[in-house]
Amino acid sequence: MPSMRAVRFHGPKDIRVDRVEEPICGKGQVKLRNTYCGICGSDLHEYTSGPVLIPKEPHSITKTTPPVIMGHEFGGVVEEVGEGVTHISPGQKAVVRPTIFDRTCPPCKLGYNSCCENIGFIGLSGYGGGFAECVVAPAEHFYPIPDHISAESMSLIEPMAVAWHAVNLSPFKEGDHVLIVGGGPVGLCILQVLKLRGAKFTMVAELMDTRKQSADDYGATHILDPTEVDIPEKVHELTDGVGADVVFDTAGVEKALNGAISACRVHGTIVNVAVWEKRPHIRVNEMMYQEVKYLGAALYDEESFLGVIEAISKGQLKPEGMITDKIGLDDVVEKGFKKLLSDRATHCKILVDPQA
Amino acid sequence: MPSMRAVRFHGPKDIRVDRVEEPICGKGQVKLRNTYCGICGSDLHEYTSGPVLIPKEPHSITKTTPPVIMGHEFGGVVEEVGEGVTHISPGQKAVVRPTIFDRTCPPCKLGYNSCCENIGFIGLSGYGGGFAECVVAPAEHFYPIPDHISAESMSLIEPMAVAWHAVNLSPFKEGDHVLIVGGGPVGLCILQVLKLRGAKFTMVAELMDTRKQSADDYGATHILDPTEVDIPEKVHELTDGVGADVVFDTAGVEKALNGAISACRVHGTIVNVAVWEKRPHIRVNEMMYQEVKYLGAALYDEESFLGVIEAISKGQLKPEGMITDKIGLDDVVEKGFKKLLSDRATHCKILVDPQA
Repeated sequence: MPSMRAVRFHGPKDIRVDRVEEPICGKGQVKLRNTYCGICGSDLHEYTSGPVLIPKEPHSITKTTPPVIMGHEFGGVVEEVGEGVTHISPGQKAVVRPTIFDRTCPPCKLGYNSCCENIGFIGLSGYGGGFAECVVAPAEHFYPIPDHISAESMSLIEPMAVAWHAVNLSPFKEGDHVLIVGGGPVGLCILQVLKLRGAKFTMVAELMDTRKQSADDYGATHILDPTEVDIPEKVHELTDGVGADVVFDTAGVEKALNGAISACRVHGTIVNVAVWEKRPHIRVNEMMYQEVKYLGAALYDEESFLGVIEAISKGQLKPEGMITDKIGLDDVVEKGFKKLLSDRATHCKILVDPQA
Repeated sequence: MPSMRAVRFHGPKDIRVDRVEEPICGKGQVKLRNTYCGICGSDLHEYTSGPVLIPKEPHSITKTTPPVIMGHEFGGVVEEVGEGVTHISPGQKAVVRPTIFDRTCPPCKLGYNSCCENIGFIGLSGYGGGFAECVVAPAEHFYPIPDHISAESMSLIEPMAVAWHAVNLSPFKEGDHVLIVGGGPVGLCILQVLKLRGAKFTMVAELMDTRKQSADDYGATHILDPTEVDIPEKVHELTDGVGADVVFDTAGVEKALNGAISACRVHGTIVNVAVWEKRPHIRVNEMMYQEVKYLGAALYDEESFLGVIEAISKGQLKPEGMITDKIGLDDVVEKGFKKLLSDRATHCKILVDPQA
């Protein structure tokens, strides 16, 4: 039985490069030889204080428990397809939609698969993951990708789909004044999607120089540093006293959210795309008096995933600019997780090459 | 110069029945001989810990400072109209829309007068109020009322307009499963508006027996006592595991709001109609994963005010059932404010008769 290297979560601060059996492609499944896989903020949460999304009990759909293979932002080249799989063929490039859902719970029945009560993820809850030489999973998770799309871009489809979906849920329309709180990977993805949809006035609140530079590179019209200006005051100044029509909060920081509430215009909308470590104390009275809407946006639906694939295919989105390093599988902890945790000033998106 | 009795706020716990000059009706103004005026929750906030909405500095529109005349849920009979006033005549019944706005700030210019940056209220920020024998204010605040509407009902138009507006802002539609958190005056008003709009499944979370009884009287289909059942669990049980489509939070209690987040269905909506004494710690992650919307609803626009007047005129809303006592002006503190604060188990809406 051939073996492969795979990054597995054994416990918090205990992530190892293990040698495991290479998975076998069964009926209705696809086997992918993985190319680049991005490290996500949720991977870092698992590393520092997991298991969070990684199941403690056997996951209700995949039946998997730790040690699980990690990595959910990835694509590769199809190596084999199981019986009955017709939408994709060996040799084709493919990207993985990692979300696993049961189709039977109330949210799924209402059409919101990404809010499934038993949601799981390839790379967190079973079926292997992207931080391994190859993966086998049900065929529905694999989308064929045109040859001209780079392996780097493929690995950025998943985070870009998060942004695409958040913008879809928001009431954003051309001409709106938008504030993005946080210039990390999610903030930059949202900025790119907004620009593609015709945004002409995009403010990014961010304090780190490299992230400010990235926001500028991606065409933000105003970079606001909360250590230099009062964000609500500055936003009002820039918008003739009106405030932002739409705010995307990617930071998940209490002070920043309350500032966003003040920066938002009457009847404006704040979209939460952040995962919070602590429950924030929220200025609800101010939200009420300004009749602001606060929306949660989580993950993406298939439409968003397909939208991003098409936009990248056409060259309308160029997410590779967010990549700050590419490393080999054996370096995932030292040069990946630890770097992202300790050096956010330098790093934005680090890709792992599972074949290196 | 004739004088009149008026209830005035001098400071927290210092509300007095004073003898003041009767106001004179000038150009563009209306003088009303007041009938019943309801005591509102915000009056109680002023009494216990004001000034909250009562201005500390001269109010930017009315130029008033304490002592201010209180009472903003009221109507009366027109006694005099000033030069240029044509929409209303002496002898007619009229209700007062107490909201005062500047028409020039960004929210007003966007059409959201009730979110005016300089919002004021007759009965809190100047132009007199309903806890006085008569009032004089700009004519735009007075709406003629058909003779067959009782003085009691007139005093309930304002709180009912709050509910009407909150339901308007919500995505409620017939067939929805609705949860109302709190069976006090605002909760009961929302229940009545929802029933009028065709609601067939209305759950009210309330622990006090008399309020539970009122919710039942007004046709709530399910009364859920949080001391007896787990609200999110019960709501899911009653809705085939789906959760509430729309939640109205009238309580402003952290535990109840977090319960409401769990009780709300995926992509459901929570409308905040409560004024919060403390900023709550909110379960934002749960809101995000369920993609719940959280909306602030404040006050009412003119459309809501007119909608309520019409519905009461046609006998479609019968708010008098919320009245638990009627008292004279001199009793406003002892039998009004203090009773509502100490005996919420008995009292819902207490009306003050400024002529008694």
